[in-house]
Amino acid sequence: MKIVSIGLGLIGGSFALCLRRIFPNAEILGIDKSDAHISEAKSIGIIEDAATKKDIASANLVVLSVPVDVANTQIMSLLDQISEDCLVVDMGSTKSSICQLVAKHTKRAQFLAMHPIAGTEFSGPKAALANLFDHQLMILCEVEKTRPELVEKMEAILAEIPMNLRYMDAAAHDKHLAYVSHLSHVSSFMLGKTVLDLEKDEREIFYLAGSGFASTVRLAKSNPRTWAAIFSENKEAVLTSLKEYIENLKNFQELLENNDFANLELQLKETQRKKEVLKKEK
Amino acid sequence: MKIVSIGLGLIGGSFALCLRRIFPNAEILGIDKSDAHISEAKSIGIIEDAATKKDIASANLVVLSVPVDVANTQIMSLLDQISEDCLVVDMGSTKSSICQLVAKHTKRAQFLAMHPIAGTEFSGPKAALANLFDHQLMILCEVEKTRPELVEKMEAILAEIPMNLRYMDAAAHDKHLAYVSHLSHVSSFMLGKTVLDLEKDEREIFYLAGSGFASTVRLAKSNPRTWAAIFSENKEAVLTSLKEYIENLKNFQELLENNDFANLELQLKETQRKKEVLKKEK
Repeated sequence: MKIVSIGLGLIGGSFALCLRRIFPNAEILGIDKSDAHISEAKSIGIIEDAATKKDIASANLVVLSVPVDVANTQIMSLLDQISEDCLVVDMGSTKSSICQLVAKHTKRAQFLAMHPIAGTEFSGPKAALANLFDHQLMILCEVEKTRPELVEKMEAILAEIPMNLRYMDAAAHDKHLAYVSHLSHVSSFMLGKTVLDLEKDEREIFYLAGSGFASTVRLAKSNPRTWAAIFSENKEAVLTSLKEYIENLKNFQELLENNDFANLELQLKETQRKKEVLKKEK
Repeated sequence: MKIVSIGLGLIGGSFALCLRRIFPNAEILGIDKSDAHISEAKSIGIIEDAATKKDIASANLVVLSVPVDVANTQIMSLLDQISEDCLVVDMGSTKSSICQLVAKHTKRAQFLAMHPIAGTEFSGPKAALANLFDHQLMILCEVEKTRPELVEKMEAILAEIPMNLRYMDAAAHDKHLAYVSHLSHVSSFMLGKTVLDLEKDEREIFYLAGSGFASTVRLAKSNPRTWAAIFSENKEAVLTSLKEYIENLKNFQELLENNDFANLELQLKETQRKKEVLKKEK
């Protein structure tokens, strides 16, 4: 079995480590725009070597884990290159644009759109974790358009990790992820910016920051390249959720300006009406 | 030694547990508006019993850990009741208003304004942790207005925990905390609200939430009563930081609307120019 992992960062690296565990005898090769990443991935044991074009043509599985805009520029020619038995999976955080792109490709049935709900704020091969995906959720989009035995092959791999599977429409995926993931990142990046802007004048405020601040700005450490691409690919849904968020903040501002502390407290309590949904934390 | 802890929640309960460790023979008594909290605090071993008015008059140390607006309504009569040797410390998250209130009290020199930079999103006596303050920061405001031997007494206790000490002006404290703590809470509460509002129509979006979402909305689980009071007491500084935050979000929205992804990515990178300040997480 020959596997090619395109993109050897947090997601691609971690998934390759899973595949290594499941297929100890597989040949796992890698492609990355960064030579340093290739070397690192080799030294850590994520891949055996760099992959060539020939390797793609003879691969059984190709895993694409690159920024979502890059995935869109590569997917068509990638499908052109693969053999008849090969499955290409994409691990990106947005699914509509790539599904639209491949829709009419003659090898559409050899493509599977996936999105693991797992990650950390770190990036690069050194951030890869062998257990990153354990018991986490994998969303699969438009499985009905992928050749059944290829879907089953991937499902068997995911069951082995093990991951929990959910099947979704690509548009619904993108809309919902805007709320429960992409908006959190916007919020966190801009919170970091707001406080850093102040810090230009007030050099010492950060020693005052406690674990609450750290928790809300944790995602601001995420890879800017990766996230700029996600925001652009999922522009409309991110804008919708962002506008609602800004409205809520402005409403909060007004309550405070009007000294309407009773309603302000009520709003905070409302937020907790489903406290259990706020629970899950890694 | 007799200690009275007024307020037996997360902060008051945890500090009482520290005092118990440092003074195994001290009598630690408690006051709380909730009878259930008194019982819980007794059964956990935070206090020996409920305190009476008489206990306040004979106490050596009174620790006030109630919502900041409640502290303001209680502090003056509390100072009236204490003996000549007693120290009253306030543990609230805002310091300007209480310092202004006590400024002209004849027992001003027996009051010490403190703020521990430590906490969790949980509340009540059961949330108390014996090690919550270990190696965390304690800010002391206007120490020059407190009788030196009383300051030294508290410094010795804090050194024993051990906590790190910083001395600050009350107004500077409130301004800076608005940015590194209060704004994080506003952001988190409103993010929770935004996603919960959507969830009314889309019942199942939360299974899609990963650890990133959980991290950004963790603070939305904080006590609404406590936080409504902090926002109201520190209204001006919170409004200033909130308006800047909203401006940054609107600017992000514009970059996205205008497809200016280059500048959008630049903004995300800018946020990371001091990545190390985003590091600290409990």
